[in-house]
Amino acid sequence: MSSEKPSLEVCLSPALLHLYNTAGSVVVIIDIFRATSTITAALHNGAASVIPVASVQDCIAIGNSLPNSLTAGERDGKIAPGLQHGNSPLEYPTDFVQGKTLVLTTTNGTRLLHMVKDAAQIVIGSFLNLSVVCDYLLAQNKNVLLGCASWKDKYNLEDTLFAGAVVSRVGHAFEVNCDAARGARHLFNSTGGSNFINFLRDSSHYRRLSAYGLEEDMEYCVTPDKHPVLPLLQGDRIVAVR
Amino acid sequence: MSSEKPSLEVCLSPALLHLYNTAGSVVVIIDIFRATSTITAALHNGAASVIPVASVQDCIAIGNSLPNSLTAGERDGKIAPGLQHGNSPLEYPTDFVQGKTLVLTTTNGTRLLHMVKDAAQIVIGSFLNLSVVCDYLLAQNKNVLLGCASWKDKYNLEDTLFAGAVVSRVGHAFEVNCDAARGARHLFNSTGGSNFINFLRDSSHYRRLSAYGLEEDMEYCVTPDKHPVLPLLQGDRIVAVR
Repeated sequence: MSSEKPSLEVCLSPALLHLYNTAGSVVVIIDIFRATSTITAALHNGAASVIPVASVQDCIAIGNSLPNSLTAGERDGKIAPGLQHGNSPLEYPTDFVQGKTLVLTTTNGTRLLHMVKDAAQIVIGSFLNLSVVCDYLLAQNKNVLLGCASWKDKYNLEDTLFAGAVVSRVGHAFEVNCDAARGARHLFNSTGGSNFINFLRDSSHYRRLSAYGLEEDMEYCVTPDKHPVLPLLQGDRIVAVR
Repeated sequence: MSSEKPSLEVCLSPALLHLYNTAGSVVVIIDIFRATSTITAALHNGAASVIPVASVQDCIAIGNSLPNSLTAGERDGKIAPGLQHGNSPLEYPTDFVQGKTLVLTTTNGTRLLHMVKDAAQIVIGSFLNLSVVCDYLLAQNKNVLLGCASWKDKYNLEDTLFAGAVVSRVGHAFEVNCDAARGARHLFNSTGGSNFINFLRDSSHYRRLSAYGLEEDMEYCVTPDKHPVLPLLQGDRIVAVR
């Protein structure tokens, strides 16, 4: 084993993904509001797997073909026509989701996940499983890319803040020569390490989602370690590794 | 005149420029290390104009065709073969540059400048003319995009820090609903508003340029208001407006 540390980088937008070499790396997909938070919560609450799909149409088709599945996804803050459920981590308690397959369509998070082709492993990251993700990254001894799903390719504060939390926790074990990682860490440090929802109140996503009455959702999504589970992509499904 | 404030946004990389509507806007080009710093210094020291060009070949050709011109540009921290001078703001004192046309080739800054097609005005921004740029933006009552040249399309700390300084100074007069602008402002605030060079010592560009012995250059480049001049693009030339 080389004595050199593996690298840790942050990609701030799917539109910048081509700048990074993800071959053989661990890539963490980050879509705090709310895809990766919902996936984390559903899997921790016992969902058999989550199948992320790009379109509502695919979601319906896959849902129809799979027994014991739920279709879910939102467009503009409402359950998309033809689907059964929304994109809130609060919608998937254990007694509802246990043993079921969640077929989930989201825009930003799913797109980024499908763009990464050659990673050694794709991990779903959120505040809800922050420590589990950090422990996993520390154990792998592989290069890491933290991939922010962003919002329609624009930098967003909540995904960057989570990336900064990870850099702050695990950076010591990596070579961090990436200004996006440094910037994310500065952002995280400027919060004092807590009360993230207060910090995020002045953000584009908070403004947009609070117009749909989703304040409670967002507060839930930035609660560290509420759902300690490791969601990994295996084939076309995300499954929980405990 | 509408009572609504114009918008202020930050574009963190040329690769994200297509996400922003620059029609009728004021676009500030930011390439702190070192293109926009050098342009600002040369113009304040009396250069007649600066012609930014993409390639060394174009630089030589235009230099040959223009009387009283200087060709300048670096590749990998050294004067590019065929050119006369480098890309340091310290190379262009008044007694050298007065009345001359500087034909300058840089990679990141020039590229971004040439990518912006429909702006009302393109301004060259650097710490060296921070206050002049801010005063100009406040006076225009137009939408503003702060465009970071970045480094090969990757986010960099020094350009974002400058963008944050501008957002911090003029944000009150604009509608700032842009997470990149908020993030830049948080970054700026985390410096305490001074000693930027100390903050930037742990950055990719500082590491790269200090390997070429350019520490003094970089310290100069982050000195606020040393060259109070307003460089505007007019046709294919950047000229000083005092």
